Amino acid sequence: MAGLDFLFAPSSVAVIGASRHAGKVGYSVFRNIISSNFPGKVYPINPSADEILGHKAYKSILDVNDNIDLAIVTVPAELVLRVAEECGQKRVKGMVVISAGFKESGRRGAELERILVEKSRKYNFRILGPNCLGFIDTFTPINASFASGSPLRGNIGFASQSGAILTGVLEWSLEEGIGFSKVISLGNKSDLNEADTIEALASDSHTKVILLYLEGVEDGVRFFEVARKASRMKPIVVLKSGVSSAGARAASSHTGALAGSDKAYSTAFNQIGILRAHNIEELFNYGITFSLQNIPKINAVAIITNAGGPGIIATDKCEEEGLPLARFEPETIEKLRSNLPKEASIYNPVDILGDAQEDRYRFALETVLSDSNVGHVLIILTPQAMTRPQKIAEAIVEVSGRHREKAVVASFIGGESVREASKTLMSNNLPCFDFPERGVKAIAGLVKFAEFMRREPDLEIPVFQVDKNKVNEIFTNVYKDNRVVLLGDEAAAVARAYGIPTPEVKLARSLEEAVEIAESIGYPLVMKVASPHIIHKTDIGGVIMNLENKDEVSEAYYTILSNVLRYFPSSQIYGILVQQMVPQGKEIIIGMTRDLTWGPMVGVGLGGIYVNLFEDVSFKISPFSRKEAFDMLSKTKAYRLLKGMRGEKPSDIDSVIDVILRVSQLSRDFRIINEMDINPLFAYEKGCSALDVKITLEKGK
Amino acid sequence: MAGLDFLFAPSSVAVIGASRHAGKVGYSVFRNIISSNFPGKVYPINPSADEILGHKAYKSILDVNDNIDLAIVTVPAELVLRVAEECGQKRVKGMVVISAGFKESGRRGAELERILVEKSRKYNFRILGPNCLGFIDTFTPINASFASGSPLRGNIGFASQSGAILTGVLEWSLEEGIGFSKVISLGNKSDLNEADTIEALASDSHTKVILLYLEGVEDGVRFFEVARKASRMKPIVVLKSGVSSAGARAASSHTGALAGSDKAYSTAFNQIGILRAHNIEELFNYGITFSLQNIPKINAVAIITNAGGPGIIATDKCEEEGLPLARFEPETIEKLRSNLPKEASIYNPVDILGDAQEDRYRFALETVLSDSNVGHVLIILTPQAMTRPQKIAEAIVEVSGRHREKAVVASFIGGESVREASKTLMSNNLPCFDFPERGVKAIAGLVKFAEFMRREPDLEIPVFQVDKNKVNEIFTNVYKDNRVVLLGDEAAAVARAYGIPTPEVKLARSLEEAVEIAESIGYPLVMKVASPHIIHKTDIGGVIMNLENKDEVSEAYYTILSNVLRYFPSSQIYGILVQQMVPQGKEIIIGMTRDLTWGPMVGVGLGGIYVNLFEDVSFKISPFSRKEAFDMLSKTKAYRLLKGMRGEKPSDIDSVIDVILRVSQLSRDFRIINEMDINPLFAYEKGCSALDVKITLEKGK
Repeated sequence: MAGLDFLFAPSSVAVIGASRHAGKVGYSVFRNIISSNFPGKVYPINPSADEILGHKAYKSILDVNDNIDLAIVTVPAELVLRVAEECGQKRVKGMVVISAGFKESGRRGAELERILVEKSRKYNFRILGPNCLGFIDTFTPINASFASGSPLRGNIGFASQSGAILTGVLEWSLEEGIGFSKVISLGNKSDLNEADTIEALASDSHTKVILLYLEGVEDGVRFFEVARKASRMKPIVVLKSGVSSAGARAASSHTGALAGSDKAYSTAFNQIGILRAHNIEELFNYGITFSLQNIPKINAVAIITNAGGPGIIATDKCEEEGLPLARFEPETIEKLRSNLPKEASIYNPVDILGDAQEDRYRFALETVLSDSNVGHVLIILTPQAMTRPQKIAEAIVEVSGRHREKAVVASFIGGESVREASKTLMSNNLPCFDFPERGVKAIAGLVKFAEFMRREPDLEIPVFQVDKNKVNEIFTNVYKDNRVVLLGDEAAAVARAYGIPTPEVKLARSLEEAVEIAESIGYPLVMKVASPHIIHKTDIGGVIMNLENKDEVSEAYYTILSNVLRYFPSSQIYGILVQQMVPQGKEIIIGMTRDLTWGPMVGVGLGGIYVNLFEDVSFKISPFSRKEAFDMLSKTKAYRLLKGMRGEKPSDIDSVIDVILRVSQLSRDFRIINEMDINPLFAYEKGCSALDVKITLEKGK
Repeated sequence: MAGLDFLFAPSSVAVIGASRHAGKVGYSVFRNIISSNFPGKVYPINPSADEILGHKAYKSILDVNDNIDLAIVTVPAELVLRVAEECGQKRVKGMVVISAGFKESGRRGAELERILVEKSRKYNFRILGPNCLGFIDTFTPINASFASGSPLRGNIGFASQSGAILTGVLEWSLEEGIGFSKVISLGNKSDLNEADTIEALASDSHTKVILLYLEGVEDGVRFFEVARKASRMKPIVVLKSGVSSAGARAASSHTGALAGSDKAYSTAFNQIGILRAHNIEELFNYGITFSLQNIPKINAVAIITNAGGPGIIATDKCEEEGLPLARFEPETIEKLRSNLPKEASIYNPVDILGDAQEDRYRFALETVLSDSNVGHVLIILTPQAMTRPQKIAEAIVEVSGRHREKAVVASFIGGESVREASKTLMSNNLPCFDFPERGVKAIAGLVKFAEFMRREPDLEIPVFQVDKNKVNEIFTNVYKDNRVVLLGDEAAAVARAYGIPTPEVKLARSLEEAVEIAESIGYPLVMKVASPHIIHKTDIGGVIMNLENKDEVSEAYYTILSNVLRYFPSSQIYGILVQQMVPQGKEIIIGMTRDLTWGPMVGVGLGGIYVNLFEDVSFKISPFSRKEAFDMLSKTKAYRLLKGMRGEKPSDIDSVIDVILRVSQLSRDFRIINEMDINPLFAYEKGCSALDVKITLEKGK
């Protein structure tokens, strides 16, 4: 893990603010480093001590007559800048700033933090923190944190933006006997952030699964790129909180209104291949499961139980999680039938009855694991009169050891009476949960990650031939006009420049122009007032449809103008749009909203005037492949409509995907587009047509 | 609890099948009764023993020279009928049949069970089981079960259809120090079922909360009635499994397709006022919370935490659960501001910082509980350097004791280091969970039940003046015609007989009739083929709209016939429906499907041709009040459409609710109606019109 070597492989460490007084953070950190058997050199820095825990103390890091790779800083915030200056002069590779009193404490702290980062740039060192608990590496080993307990050595890499969550997870891990490779408290993320952490943990051979607790992502674009690569190598599980405090800006488009910050996180995580945990328990349970088990190639699940109720509950939960129950091979069924009591249920879930002893568990598990349709087994035990949980646990360990390519997850129900058995399972790499639902959820995590692994390995981002200059020209004119919202004909022209089919439309500024345009487009036509101030144009008679000839166009021109003048006497009117009438198609919405963290988010769903009612929009962060665009569309009700319901012929789905991809390209080519809606896009049996296009640019470019 | 006195207040008990051999069920049950200090008399019945555990044994219950109130039966299934006969002769009040080998084991067992129930009817005694674990009453006290541990005395009444779930919950309860009033293993529910249990537990003064694990409900109508009354008195929490094995029959209506068995359970539970747990953990957590806490009058929640992360997570979870965060009064904020460190967050969630000691917890909790806007407090602790969990737990106990009308729920994160503190809280009636999400979920349960309690106390079921004779006559004719599906005009006539506005429609069997009907209804008209075999009438030219006069009617008559003959040459044609054209309105669906357990389920939602696409149907079990009908409608997207979107005028919502209530009445008056769809119902600014009515009757009346 080259990127964070300064943290995890230092030859020498200085603890600036090391203290002799138990209870002080500077004491805890120094003592933890020493008692973690760190093999490198450790220097306590403290101007008023000669010696700390048997180590000679120095007044300043500059007094140490040796290279210092890493400085751990616990002094008060107001002293940190001076310390950083000295660290810079000493040419440290990194600083871990445990001290609080920075960005988290208000404006003054934020200024301190900014200067601190400047110093790190100047002297070319990295910073973890400030306002963090430090970090732990169980292999180096080094515990440079003030966490109270020390974690076991294991294969979970864990980074947390909250010290409290980090502490909590470490305490649970001790109870469950689960170990960590590296633990990182991210603090304020002034320099090192979650993307660096993922990158480092992905290439760390001691780490099998990456767990993260985040309240936000610093640099969405880099995170996306780094995490997408990492998730091909090992599972990443993220608990992202701060859902309710979502800093979503007010949206003026339908697509924007249906997006929102938390949806953006979910969308991005899913696209990256990150498993999102929805609570602390889930984060921890996924961690246990990925830590102990491998990822089976087959999704289907078999359930073995000694009681009906929990078997039914597990079956329900499988359905809820979309997990397929395995269909056993005929030989499996035959074998179960001839060896289990006749009251047993030999189909999945397999109920081996309340009087099942270890031999029956052993037989059932061996038989089911040997079935080539089975990828995962959930094995349930509830203690009954004759049950010997410990013996059964040993049988499970023995059998599952012969089937390492499949996952075995246990649920032993019943507290104290199964405690020992549960420990036996866990210490033999078999996750054991108290509730069967948690076992199913754990399996669902394995399956979800297996599906992430099976996705197209490289994104082929289609690139269309487009007319960027034309779009540039239009945007320039819009800004010149002191607007950010494009008029209908401008937006349509942008769409057309990107190969999105639109009905022909032109702006007429006079009756003569209207007639001229009408004759050049051909009939039938629709005419609409062009004004940035009038939203519901239809309601005030600002739209007239089905115009068949010159005369009707002339009449419509005056009718619209007089209607508008009546209802909006002082509104700015750019003219009248003359547009080709196109036949009614299936109404789709395709749009884009720019997320503050993740960038352009493209959406597709059921369109029309009630788009907010249907709330049927599925999103992806741009860029994405054609396959991903199809995947996005196929998750919507709109897709079912396009496929043809009630015996209808299917619409041209390819042409709709084309529009999605072209909108995606447009949103990347022009970062000044804030929001865009095509609503409706009419989809036909052949082709489609973007009837109404709305584009809003960033303010005051 | 008069209803189950034979179970819980027997003067004398016989254990038929009592055994001297440890490990046998007959031994465990007998020993449990004795060691539970049952104050009545106990007689072991065993033909081959003289004495069991110091009690004289009898060969038969008939040999006992005393009255026997209750017989507990553990003999093999094939002996149970003879035992039952003897029990009958002995005039027992009840039998608890622990023995397995009945309905659960196949056809022969089911027959045994049927005869057993017959005997109980003949001799007028009740049966718990068969195939159950028995029951426990901690107040009588009596433990007539073969559960291994004995539960603590407490206020949870618990009944379970699964012995394993029952055992599991009892084991956890011992770990958490939670007690039960009564525990009932329902087994096969041959006689005593969940409704009896709820009725008994509702009137039991020792029971504060009722927990149920169910795989099905025996008698939905009785359950509904009994549970609805009970849920006014105390919380009922149900874990209902068997979602995936839903025995829903194939549905021919849209409403039926959108319903399904699990939706019926959710609908019924919600209407009754039952809290549905979604997994075992939730069932147990709700049990703990209702057992320990009272139900506050105010919904709003305050969060106090010593760390940011868990506070954010709890806030997210509140939003997810729809729990309002309390807005503090100005005095509260002022008090917090002047007494907490300046880095603390004094708004909700209140962050009292990592160095918070018991005094700061005490102050914050007292201040927040004194705020009149606060109903619930979630108090979070994560152990940090200076934290003393035990002292803080004691402070919380002290303060919350002064505010019993409000709920305090704790989340102490961090395993072993908070174990003692957590026990202190629990033993002082303060629920304490490891994860903050579980604390929030617990509060959500309290709030949901409080809302159940606030609902209209009595259901006023509106009764409309209707023409039942007319409907009877139509149904009789349909059956005479060997059909179960009504033709359009028949269904419309049924709707009209129940006061549901429909466009006028009549069946014409000849051209002359068509013209005659047309002239009597008036123009414009629509004409449709009437045939039970043609589903998509429009697609084959079987529907012609906008007919303005006699001539057009004549032409349409022949056109439809020839179209139909071309596409469906051999289909049965009843004639041509001539129907009044009504203006387009907002498209709503109102329907009914008869659930096997719960009876008529009425639904309302977005209608039109894509009703399956929108899947926007909200249900209630009939009967329901006008307020409930409104409540049902208001949960749909259809309601938002009716209220008027995009500046539209609102539709006549009252008239839609009227139709819902009339459909509800119709479905109760005629139990032979299996399914019904009104789709679309056009809703207008004034009134509405049921454009298309479909009714399917039960087969072979």
